[in-house]
Amino acid sequence: MNDRLQKQIDFIVKIDEEKNILRQTHLSHHGRRENDAEHAWHMAIMAYLLQEYANQEVDIGRVMILCLIHDIVEIEAGDTYAYDEEAKKTQAERERKAAEHLFAMLPEDQCRMMHELFDEFEHGDTPEARFARAMDNFQPLLLNDANQGESWMEHDVARSSIDARQKKTADGSKQLYEVIESILDRHMELGHIRQG
Amino acid sequence: MNDRLQKQIDFIVKIDEEKNILRQTHLSHHGRRENDAEHAWHMAIMAYLLQEYANQEVDIGRVMILCLIHDIVEIEAGDTYAYDEEAKKTQAERERKAAEHLFAMLPEDQCRMMHELFDEFEHGDTPEARFARAMDNFQPLLLNDANQGESWMEHDVARSSIDARQKKTADGSKQLYEVIESILDRHMELGHIRQG
Repeated sequence: MNDRLQKQIDFIVKIDEEKNILRQTHLSHHGRRENDAEHAWHMAIMAYLLQEYANQEVDIGRVMILCLIHDIVEIEAGDTYAYDEEAKKTQAERERKAAEHLFAMLPEDQCRMMHELFDEFEHGDTPEARFARAMDNFQPLLLNDANQGESWMEHDVARSSIDARQKKTADGSKQLYEVIESILDRHMELGHIRQG
Repeated sequence: MNDRLQKQIDFIVKIDEEKNILRQTHLSHHGRRENDAEHAWHMAIMAYLLQEYANQEVDIGRVMILCLIHDIVEIEAGDTYAYDEEAKKTQAERERKAAEHLFAMLPEDQCRMMHELFDEFEHGDTPEARFARAMDNFQPLLLNDANQGESWMEHDVARSSIDARQKKTADGSKQLYEVIESILDRHMELGHIRQG
């Protein structure tokens, strides 16, 4: 096997480890915790089915690959829970180091490409990245909703924290943001999300 | 929420169940069994990274969505192991029924679109479907390889059975098919795959 293909295969086998990175979200029907690979798979299909709601026209292939790869760095940096303020302070630095290390397994052009994709998602400067980020927020919210707000209650999350995160969803899709707000209102009324 | 978006969301929450459909393949490092969502995620990223090896130029966005959705029917039809000849006799009919039932949850245009995507993958009539199917074969092979042929030994699989399946990989990528054959040769020598 040539050196280029060997590097690509080594990387492909390495990212298998993403299936062991657990998130705080639980699968529907009050299932086990979800892992990063499942989350990314779900986001990419959501993006495809919901693309009509994007604020701007998007290259859906680009949105899907952004969704699929956005959490690869967590193989080494670990998952950072959206409402863990302490862990979020070191998140960017941990993920930058992981990206350096992991993407360097690939041939140089693809290493560069992966950095570009990862940075595009992180910075949210393109319509594709903004829509992918909207999926990143909407996907766990749908599972939490299906589980009667289980994760919000478990972590005693305040509405203001959720709103701070979900505001970025509006940058990708105003229509989906409105739906999210109405779902959150309902869970507030049910006492699944703390005021404040 | 309007009726169209409600249907889309109901479908999105429904396919969460794909994360509970277990395959015979084990995660690398002799891990637990892989599920369909993880497999599809892995295949889609592989397709993106290995697109240069496709026999014909492909629309990579189309390849990725084919990879991502190809196993959704297994939510109702169950996983059919590649080397279970008895189960394979009823597979097409079980999956057709599941597709009818599941895709009907979506708005009519997207129901039709999902049938088209699923049929395209199954029939392998396009360069995109052929390359996606190559990923469907190559992905578990890489995990088996990383696990010293564990699944082949567990199921006492014969080389002729693997070859019959992998021949279709060559329709998507002759170059990757050659790599696969050399990996299989090595496992034959190591006694991980039965002659015959």
